[in-house]
Amino acid sequence: MRVVVPFSVDRPKTRLAPVLDAEERAGFAHAMLDDVLDALANAGQHPTVLATAPVDCDAPVEVDDRPLTDAVNDRLPAPGEEPVAVVMADLALATSEALDRLFAPDADVVFAPGRGGGTNALVVDHPDFHVDYHGASIRDHRVIAREIGAETTTVDSFRLATDVDESTDLVEVLLHAEGRAADWLREAGFTVTTTDGRVEATR
Amino acid sequence: MRVVVPFSVDRPKTRLAPVLDAEERAGFAHAMLDDVLDALANAGQHPTVLATAPVDCDAPVEVDDRPLTDAVNDRLPAPGEEPVAVVMADLALATSEALDRLFAPDADVVFAPGRGGGTNALVVDHPDFHVDYHGASIRDHRVIAREIGAETTTVDSFRLATDVDESTDLVEVLLHAEGRAADWLREAGFTVTTTDGRVEATR
Repeated sequence: MRVVVPFSVDRPKTRLAPVLDAEERAGFAHAMLDDVLDALANAGQHPTVLATAPVDCDAPVEVDDRPLTDAVNDRLPAPGEEPVAVVMADLALATSEALDRLFAPDADVVFAPGRGGGTNALVVDHPDFHVDYHGASIRDHRVIAREIGAETTTVDSFRLATDVDESTDLVEVLLHAEGRAADWLREAGFTVTTTDGRVEATR
Repeated sequence: MRVVVPFSVDRPKTRLAPVLDAEERAGFAHAMLDDVLDALANAGQHPTVLATAPVDCDAPVEVDDRPLTDAVNDRLPAPGEEPVAVVMADLALATSEALDRLFAPDADVVFAPGRGGGTNALVVDHPDFHVDYHGASIRDHRVIAREIGAETTTVDSFRLATDVDESTDLVEVLLHAEGRAADWLREAGFTVTTTDGRVEATR
């Protein structure tokens, strides 16, 4: 299986701007990327980072500055090629155990849905499948799979569902992750704060 | 195993007030309760609803108007008693498969963390464990387990992590559930809307 990890170098994590400045967002995004690459390595995979510009990390990098959907579609398997997994770079809670559950099923397409309609990871073993990351992508991806007659499986994982895009997501990293992203947040002064409803990460 | 489903009859789902009026919140909360009871029945369980006031549902009801923590602690297993599972009534995405994963591990305490630091479900098979649902309860519950020397397991499930408390949670029901809560939202006019970031349920 080939594993591709898309990563935005130029303007990473813009929705974290209310709590992190541009330099911090870049540093935190890189820490999450490193965590995802570590988890993939622990799962026995050899990922390639699909980046919008050159980036220094512990994996081979392919630079492609097109929109995410186009860059990923260009790397999905042609007929007869091995399956391709696409794992987002902001899954700071990912572990090798969670990723093993993504890689295990024998289906044409395996989905790991993200919160808010995203598709945080998928494995494609069908030559006619294509991605469309705009909008409620998990719903669109199910439609695409149905249209081409592809058999699908969904992995029910909180860790893979938790992409870190917004300030309210940071607390999940503090509570459930133990890698560099969690260390980064702690060193930046973030702690878990109790509010009226869910708890939050604040500094 | 005894299974307890806490349910607030008096003021359910107050954090949904921005999008649902009081009568709607009560109706939607009841639809979610019915879905959780269905999923538990499909998993072969015979739950008891632990309600703050009498409620009409397809399970035996025990009324206890104390705070959640007190009411649950009073029902955890004494020495020699069978394990007790506590499953929240707002897990509208719960399925029998997800619940089977909660009930399967042979540990003193099994946790299903919720988003934002909650403990959406747990199974207690240790006489000294107690719950404390205030604040970041999953963190506190880990500490309590460690203090009494209880062996713990965590179930990594997006479905069990998704409690429906706030308006941004509703879209998960529309995208990933097929029960009465999803029907209720559709009949109330909610649809999936694409925003700049994650998608939302609006009407």
